Amino acid sequence: MTAKEESEENVIYVGNKPPMSYVLAVVTQFNSGSTEVVIKARGRAISRAVDAAEITRNRFVQDAKIKEIRIGTEAITNEEGRTSNVSSIEISLSK
Amino acid sequence: MTAKEESEENVIYVGNKPPMSYVLAVVTQFNSGSTEVVIKARGRAISRAVDAAEITRNRFVQDAKIKEIRIGTEAITNEEGRTSNVSSIEISLSK
Repeated sequence: MTAKEESEENVIYVGNKPPMSYVLAVVTQFNSGSTEVVIKARGRAISRAVDAAEITRNRFVQDAKIKEIRIGTEAITNEEGRTSNVSSIEISLSK
Repeated sequence: MTAKEESEENVIYVGNKPPMSYVLAVVTQFNSGSTEVVIKARGRAISRAVDAAEITRNRFVQDAKIKEIRIGTEAITNEEGRTSNVSSIEISLSK
């Protein structure tokens, strides 16, 4: 296993499922021994990523701290070949 | 004018308008001499707050830096008296 694959294991990508799905994924990562979990999202899922981080911290992993929050812009190419920009967020939780 | 009122002038609250409305508000704040502008949002508007910060930084105020990003949880009481939790974000831009 390469170093990159190892780090990717700690990343939870937030999409359109209910927030608790992602909370469960984050809690599972911490319970399996990870000391840092990164929650990533783009576009409208950004709000859900913040929900997942907050619910995890407030209810399930109360010793988890917000280590870093980064925002950015990614270019996405759609099926017709047009590119558009979408905002992104990365929330690093550590304990 | 008290110190609190002065600091409130630098806060842009993001709601349901198009992101460019808030970009304009942020750019106007910087152009009026502010060196720091705080973008705040709750719930689903969080994604739009990130959009507003990114568009401001990438297109209009390119020397603006992200000073700090904070997330939190606020309790909201609805008209029926029930309380529910909502996530919040504060993005501080400085130049």
